[in-house]
Amino acid sequence: RGYVQTRNTTMLGGDEGVNLWSDRSVGDDKSLGDADKNFLIRRARVIIFGDYGDHLSYYIQPDFASSASGTNNIAQLRDAYGDVNFDKTKVHRIRVGQSKVPYGFENLQSSSNRLALDRNDALNSAVRDERDLGAFYYYTPTDVQALFEEINKQGLKHSGNYGMFALGLYNGQGANRAEQNDNYHVVSRLTYPWKTQSGQIYEAGIQAYKGEYVSTTGAYSRRNPATGALASATPTLGTGTPLSGRNGIDDERVGISFIMYPQPFGIQAEWNWGNTPGLDITKNVIEKKSLNGGYVQAMYKIDNFQFLSTNGTLIPFIKWQYFDGYNKAETNSPENHVNDWELGLEWQLAPELELTAVYHRMNRTNLVTGNRSSASAANNLPARVDYENFKAEALRVQLQYNF
Amino acid sequence: RGYVQTRNTTMLGGDEGVNLWSDRSVGDDKSLGDADKNFLIRRARVIIFGDYGDHLSYYIQPDFASSASGTNNIAQLRDAYGDVNFDKTKVHRIRVGQSKVPYGFENLQSSSNRLALDRNDALNSAVRDERDLGAFYYYTPTDVQALFEEINKQGLKHSGNYGMFALGLYNGQGANRAEQNDNYHVVSRLTYPWKTQSGQIYEAGIQAYKGEYVSTTGAYSRRNPATGALASATPTLGTGTPLSGRNGIDDERVGISFIMYPQPFGIQAEWNWGNTPGLDITKNVIEKKSLNGGYVQAMYKIDNFQFLSTNGTLIPFIKWQYFDGYNKAETNSPENHVNDWELGLEWQLAPELELTAVYHRMNRTNLVTGNRSSASAANNLPARVDYENFKAEALRVQLQYNF
Amino acid sequence: RGYVQTRNTTMLGGDEGVNLWSDRSVGDDKSLGDADKNFLIRRARVIIFGDYGDHLSYYIQPDFASSASGTNNIAQLRDAYGDVNFDKTKVHRIRVGQSKVPYGFENLQSSSNRLALDRNDALNSAVRDERDLGAFYYYTPTDVQALFEEINKQGLKHSGNYGMFALGLYNGQGANRAEQNDNYHVVSRLTYPWKTQSGQIYEAGIQAYKGEYVSTTGAYSRRNPATGALASATPTLGTGTPLSGRNGIDDERVGISFIMYPQPFGIQAEWNWGNTPGLDITKNVIEKKSLNGGYVQAMYKIDNFQFLSTNGTLIPFIKWQYFDGYNKAETNSPENHVNDWELGLEWQLAPELELTAVYHRMNRTNLVTGNRSSASAANNLPARVDYENFKAEALRVQLQYNF
Repeated sequence: RGYVQTRNTTMLGGDEGVNLWSDRSVGDDKSLGDADKNFLIRRARVIIFGDYGDHLSYYIQPDFASSASGTNNIAQLRDAYGDVNFDKTKVHRIRVGQSKVPYGFENLQSSSNRLALDRNDALNSAVRDERDLGAFYYYTPTDVQALFEEINKQGLKHSGNYGMFALGLYNGQGANRAEQNDNYHVVSRLTYPWKTQSGQIYEAGIQAYKGEYVSTTGAYSRRNPATGALASATPTLGTGTPLSGRNGIDDERVGISFIMYPQPFGIQAEWNWGNTPGLDITKNVIEKKSLNGGYVQAMYKIDNFQFLSTNGTLIPFIKWQYFDGYNKAETNSPENHVNDWELGLEWQLAPELELTAVYHRMNRTNLVTGNRSSASAANNLPARVDYENFKAEALRVQLQYNF
Repeated sequence: RGYVQTRNTTMLGGDEGVNLWSDRSVGDDKSLGDADKNFLIRRARVIIFGDYGDHLSYYIQPDFASSASGTNNIAQLRDAYGDVNFDKTKVHRIRVGQSKVPYGFENLQSSSNRLALDRNDALNSAVRDERDLGAFYYYTPTDVQALFEEINKQGLKHSGNYGMFALGLYNGQGANRAEQNDNYHVVSRLTYPWKTQSGQIYEAGIQAYKGEYVSTTGAYSRRNPATGALASATPTLGTGTPLSGRNGIDDERVGISFIMYPQPFGIQAEWNWGNTPGLDITKNVIEKKSLNGGYVQAMYKIDNFQFLSTNGTLIPFIKWQYFDGYNKAETNSPENHVNDWELGLEWQLAPELELTAVYHRMNRTNLVTGNRSSASAANNLPARVDYENFKAEALRVQLQYNF
Repeated sequence: RGYVQTRNTTMLGGDEGVNLWSDRSVGDDKSLGDADKNFLIRRARVIIFGDYGDHLSYYIQPDFASSASGTNNIAQLRDAYGDVNFDKTKVHRIRVGQSKVPYGFENLQSSSNRLALDRNDALNSAVRDERDLGAFYYYTPTDVQALFEEINKQGLKHSGNYGMFALGLYNGQGANRAEQNDNYHVVSRLTYPWKTQSGQIYEAGIQAYKGEYVSTTGAYSRRNPATGALASATPTLGTGTPLSGRNGIDDERVGISFIMYPQPFGIQAEWNWGNTPGLDITKNVIEKKSLNGGYVQAMYKIDNFQFLSTNGTLIPFIKWQYFDGYNKAETNSPENHVNDWELGLEWQLAPELELTAVYHRMNRTNLVTGNRSSASAANNLPARVDYENFKAEALRVQLQYNF
């Protein structure tokens, strides 16, 4: 089982040389880093899973579209875990290995299910690649298991079963990253689905985590606060000797989630608040900062949409997202301000084919570190300050196939 | 399904310190880069494929013998595409994702099918790893589909069905490489197979593509044109400010193909002409250059060859290839002159096992960039000019198993 | 088929800042390199294997927990070979590709079968990752095949069938590494299992290999023999011009193995002697050195161990290992002194789940190259000599699942 997502982006206007950190196909030939792309394989996932005996459900998911030091489309693990089931009811489970950290509904929802092309920055910045290495206890009563399955069967794009209640310990540096300090992150989540007499299903959840995170630093281009001159600088993890942030900076959040499943009209909204390591550009120091942000999404599900010989499903949607925070997992944990609108249409032509088109109006920070503090005469690109805000519009198209 | 190729090369004479860019097992302990090898896993491919529903044929092929920054035998994508079939006849298809670019017969033929150990440089230099990210339309009438299948079933080493007619758009920098400029390559191909009354099958094709390619540059060792002294240099992409080749240099070709399938005697020949980015060593500039080259191969298929308890197929072959051009996808797009003879024997012991032995007489350019402009006293290797021609002979052996 | 091992280590006492080269989860926040970890995926293996036709058994095993230049959990080959069977009895086989080198019983035993979490250093230092690229002939009479299978079926943790007699040629630089010199390593092994009238099974073996190995060098921190000052240095491969060790240094060993399978009490012991490339820190030269070392392990197999609803197998074990040698495959081939005790318990809850806990008393060399010849004021870590001995105790826990 698996899925592959191929994307193509057309810039429609606004600032030039922009980057969307979560999608390298957005941008033009003046963009930073891996500049403009035409076609991009965003995800190529193959899933090896099954039950073995009475006590094990295993799940191994490599992504074949990962990158390692400039080499693209390398296979890298996303998930590799086993659910140790206490008994056949699967009410109590302990999940050990690398898996999604139970924080946020959209984070837990598979990218193959999500309407929007990327997750919202506000909650997704909580856990790098949504995953970490750890041990998680999940409690799911059988009636909640049944309702979760019903949501899925109706094609309502559920998050998957991450327990009605979850409690876990994990390394805290994110998927496929080495642990840096000698302590754990702890996370907990409670989510509850219910169905009204009309058949309408709702779900509401609350989640929180706490730990200490060690940011990655690198040279970036900033304007000297005193002279105003552009220069390359590398931030420090806190101040003093030894550095106050050497073993991590407070990383803690609480978030709420609400979903009214699209039967046919639906609403999905999440918000979170917390503290995080973040870069203070003026001081050139990464220190404890506060954050808040989330999104609201409305969608409408049209079944039996017929076109030529196809009989599919059409889901128009609109999403607004806001973030006033920092992306700890990007180099230098830069400040990230987002105020984006997305107007999209997902067309499931057949169970095996999905075409999504999104008009995306971006008003956000460029999180890619360019470190171009002086102009490059040869390739005619001027010097640039890093981590600036930009406004741009793009038409983004994705073809996904499932197998 | 998949296959694994293990190779072993013995140098029989000629110049020392040579490299064959397409096979790291060729060379000795004075060769450049990843010098001499004894055993080498050249390809280890596992294919995940199938039809899903009425509209999708998917195909994902990682290679487990790829390298990333000095680490060998890493898994990297070769193919990851979906064929969106208009209907069940598969006459019209759109292929989206990373796949082979329909340019050349030998390029499209699977390495598990090819008689010679490597493809000819002249046509293979058109597309890095034969593949790119894009969208391709394929048109194959049902009678042509049937003839393609017949060729395959008779064990005549077909290219696979890449349409009777093909038209596609792709990024243009080659498989697993980031797009560099904001434009597409466009490619088209027409191939037509026919069968005479005697049952002899022929195929003839024509193909062309056009785009702009951005070369990769790196330090190399050259003789200063004025003083004759060896020194390290890095070429520029064109001239002027901004560099004239910053967003790519013309990359366009047209090629013809002819195949008389081995029933039992066969001939296969291809040739192509075009323009390409190429390094002018004297000027130390990469600029638009012209190229031409191809190959002629004759083979004879002996069925039911019995040896001990095996009943297999034996195919002796001879191949001559010529190239007067440049390999754009290698670092610095160096000039490449090839005039090689190969005399080989493929023995299919059983469907699962193939042993190939080739006497290879090389007269070609060493495309590996050594950048050794001064002698290394410690390891006793002298300074060397890069991209020189060499002559050498080798006995190359390959064991391939299919599963 | 496959297995995944997730580990978690708690340091119980002894020196700080230690590293166990074979397990990155051992250590604390003062450890060198990839310092302390909490959770670690040690192995994530997926095996693609089968018989195809009468002459081929194929076996491809990628590991999804490999690292490439700082990127973790990348897929990399462990095995990729085909057994060419002379006939259906499989008495005579030639194995071509990357596979385990037949040297040592514990080396050949799958990590999914081994009681101790890591292999003994003395024999495991013979072949990097136990594997290399080559061609190996295996001879296994049918009665020995039958006894090998019986050992396996009884759950006695056999090595797998690497022939009663083995003879092979291989590159010699270890798995996934490029060959460096133009010669082969040659290896041979003879192992013989027998069963007494009481049903007790024994196995004894002898093995040897010979070749020349080219070490990898890098900067390390050493105390200047004259002044006693800490400084960074990079060793040379032998002495003179050209360097005497440029094409390799003698690498040759002979080893013996004895196993009394646990029915229920068992003993397993191996020892080896030989010559190896090794670093002389005083001279700062890698040269020919001698080595010897091995281990003795005793275990007791308790079947039908019942706990709650499980009915499993419990195997307590004790292992002592000793090594007075060098680890050629680590950077700079440093000296390695080991005198370790392990007291462990493997609990197979079910065929699909194994939990192992080991109390490990380490007295050994830190083989990780830190190259920290001056103190790091910012992160408060002092300067350190590399390759020093340490003593420490740890509680190591592993959950393995098989599928």
